Amino acid sequence: MNAIVKPAEAALDVVRATLGALLGDRLQTSQALREQHANTATGRGTEAPDLVVYPLNTQEVSAILRCCWENGVPVIAFGAGSSLEGQLNAPLGGVSVDMSRMNALQEVRAEDLLAVVQPGMTRKALNHELRATGLQFPIDPGADASIGGMCATRASGTNAVRYGTMAENVLALEVVLADGQVIRTGSRAAKSSAGYDLTRLMIGSEGTLGIITEVTLRLRGIPEETLGGVAAFPDLDSACAAVIVMVQIGLEVGRVELLDAAQIRACNAYSKLQLEEVPTLFFECAGSDTSARDAAQTFADIAEEHGATSINWSSDRETRNKLWQARHDSYWAALALRPACKGLVSDACVPISALADNIAAAQADLLEKQLIGTILGHVGDGNFHVVLMTDPEDMEEAPKVSAFLKGITERAQAVGGTCTGEHGIGQGKMAALAAEAGPSLDVMRAIKLALDPRQILNPGKLFGAAQ
Amino acid sequence: MNAIVKPAEAALDVVRATLGALLGDRLQTSQALREQHANTATGRGTEAPDLVVYPLNTQEVSAILRCCWENGVPVIAFGAGSSLEGQLNAPLGGVSVDMSRMNALQEVRAEDLLAVVQPGMTRKALNHELRATGLQFPIDPGADASIGGMCATRASGTNAVRYGTMAENVLALEVVLADGQVIRTGSRAAKSSAGYDLTRLMIGSEGTLGIITEVTLRLRGIPEETLGGVAAFPDLDSACAAVIVMVQIGLEVGRVELLDAAQIRACNAYSKLQLEEVPTLFFECAGSDTSARDAAQTFADIAEEHGATSINWSSDRETRNKLWQARHDSYWAALALRPACKGLVSDACVPISALADNIAAAQADLLEKQLIGTILGHVGDGNFHVVLMTDPEDMEEAPKVSAFLKGITERAQAVGGTCTGEHGIGQGKMAALAAEAGPSLDVMRAIKLALDPRQILNPGKLFGAAQ
Repeated sequence: MNAIVKPAEAALDVVRATLGALLGDRLQTSQALREQHANTATGRGTEAPDLVVYPLNTQEVSAILRCCWENGVPVIAFGAGSSLEGQLNAPLGGVSVDMSRMNALQEVRAEDLLAVVQPGMTRKALNHELRATGLQFPIDPGADASIGGMCATRASGTNAVRYGTMAENVLALEVVLADGQVIRTGSRAAKSSAGYDLTRLMIGSEGTLGIITEVTLRLRGIPEETLGGVAAFPDLDSACAAVIVMVQIGLEVGRVELLDAAQIRACNAYSKLQLEEVPTLFFECAGSDTSARDAAQTFADIAEEHGATSINWSSDRETRNKLWQARHDSYWAALALRPACKGLVSDACVPISALADNIAAAQADLLEKQLIGTILGHVGDGNFHVVLMTDPEDMEEAPKVSAFLKGITERAQAVGGTCTGEHGIGQGKMAALAAEAGPSLDVMRAIKLALDPRQILNPGKLFGAAQ
Repeated sequence: MNAIVKPAEAALDVVRATLGALLGDRLQTSQALREQHANTATGRGTEAPDLVVYPLNTQEVSAILRCCWENGVPVIAFGAGSSLEGQLNAPLGGVSVDMSRMNALQEVRAEDLLAVVQPGMTRKALNHELRATGLQFPIDPGADASIGGMCATRASGTNAVRYGTMAENVLALEVVLADGQVIRTGSRAAKSSAGYDLTRLMIGSEGTLGIITEVTLRLRGIPEETLGGVAAFPDLDSACAAVIVMVQIGLEVGRVELLDAAQIRACNAYSKLQLEEVPTLFFECAGSDTSARDAAQTFADIAEEHGATSINWSSDRETRNKLWQARHDSYWAALALRPACKGLVSDACVPISALADNIAAAQADLLEKQLIGTILGHVGDGNFHVVLMTDPEDMEEAPKVSAFLKGITERAQAVGGTCTGEHGIGQGKMAALAAEAGPSLDVMRAIKLALDPRQILNPGKLFGAAQ
């Protein structure tokens, strides 16, 4: 793979002129807007694109790509700007393609449990539109991400333990390739064995293989009954042990999230809760009235067997919503623990038997390095995050933060886990991916070069050297 | 993509000598054995490989591929020989790599719900080995297929409506690439966003991108209680309508299979059942004692609302096993309807709202063309099969059979469905894939050429012209 370089000014001028003629004031170049489009939630420096464009349809995306392809100018697709690993930075400049105006719900087929959306639609907007149908799209990363962005980073969230990730919930895509060609992948059938699974190849490719312009999603019925609550544990080990048993017996749990004592303290303060400040499982069981109650009772029994000191659950929607809103706000709650700090979120995923040890090691390392952080996890999947509160002004802290994050990744990989459960690689985890993928990184590179030989799609992401 | 040609005799001689030195009597050339390895379950002519080899480990597979790569000789991976679309034929000769001696269960990690197997292990052998663990590997194509072959064709079966297909149940692979290089894909974590999803790319690639030498599978707990039974309907429409409602409300059904009256007649005769010879749903609900009963009762209620004339269910294991054995034997039962006939099985998958119409059209076409066939379907997924009983000696029948199968595919594609839900493309559906994939077939070709530029891996499969 040849080193990629910034395009010549002359090439950029051609692109600016051509796209300006096509898009009028839907091409923008103000510095503030360009920097906003290189939004990086995680302390990384901003590398702004040269211009920002707002296509309205697939044909315009195709024309934009064809123009950039012909002129060798980088293209970065932009959804809601909520990615966490520098996926949207433009280290070589180029064109940020903001998909936010392609945000229509194109079709809902309730009887087939599917919806067709444009990529700029956000997950909350979709669920708002679905409110009268009894159906939902359950994948819920913390932010109100765009569906296209969620595809690109293979997002998941608290519902993955029941419904899977984006990889399990997208049936078909329309994608514009590097040279502007438009393809469709997948079908409206629930399953298929027709050739290579290009849908799953595009999901998680972080804008390096094409720009997604339409998504056919699998929808789910909203369960008749949902019961939710909290179980407090004396320590992390017993909370993890309880979850392992639940997963093993195949308990139909809707969500099960672990928050450590520090995170509960943060949530109590930020979201006005009165929870005991100990390791806690937030859980939800959903199904028919009978099966939800049955599952919640089993959940409570298992929690109790593993030493839970209190277990409270309720079918009251308002109580549940307050709890889960607190869970979703936990990042902001953690940041409020240290005013003026910057948040950095780790994202390891491990075999569930290794979860308690990996979390304990992270806690020990926080103490040893005197860093401030809270821990929360989608524990049914073995996925956990440390929210680090860092001081960007503190020069002594920066290397400790780097070493801490490296430790999280290395311990996860050492037990057969992965450096990212749901946030992706971007710029932040290129070395970690190289270490994890080994020779298969060459296969990824070969596919990248086969589909985008001029390397105009989101250059400087995914592929880097192991450290 | 250049036309691919048979290798020169001299090249084959080099391969025969080199692999003979490596493998001794694990290289075989008898005509009977070679023809057996081009086994095609579906009436297609046999195209035998030049030699058959039996590797014992990954290193040998790597050496075999390196040798064939250097000499430009085709390589076809062989599992259990149960594929249905000519996947194992060797139109250009070459080496059949029989994986049956790489059939060990390498590791079971009960607490992580995963097992590591060699590709030659069959699904029944795996479940036999798991019998003491309380865990199962639920994916169940009709045949006792090998796990490697099930990966290669993205197999599924009656349990897919609950547990998904091979795409949802493989965590990681070891794969030997065309040139002999060994890579690992995926991890032991339940989910990952680390780079391109090479695991899913390999699953369903039918031996054209690499040879799978190790598979890390997701296991599932065996539910506490399973209730199963049959519901008889006055017509196909009402049976399909009942299933649509079940899917929409998210009923946790374990399996739901449709058999038409002709298939029930065949099963009664073959498996000594006394079922009413009308369209029938076989169903299973599994979970805790409470939730399984609750789901079965809901199933029965919905069936009754849709006009079911009789509904019988039981928790008795023997009764259930007899029913599901009959379902699994339905192919043989159908063949027994017409002695000395040959079976041909179609495999369309459609959005569930189009299922009743697609099945009705198939039945009408059977009548119009005076063909003999039964219909059965994994209806929760919109996947259905017609088992055609054909007379290979009848020259007038052959074009009618072709036209019938083409009609099945075209009607499925016309409603946004797929030409294959679980059997794959092989040689039999290359034109159908070309029609369905459109320009995305070029992307598949580009990936094929990037990973196997000499086109030695299973040549003459997947890629063909639309008709």
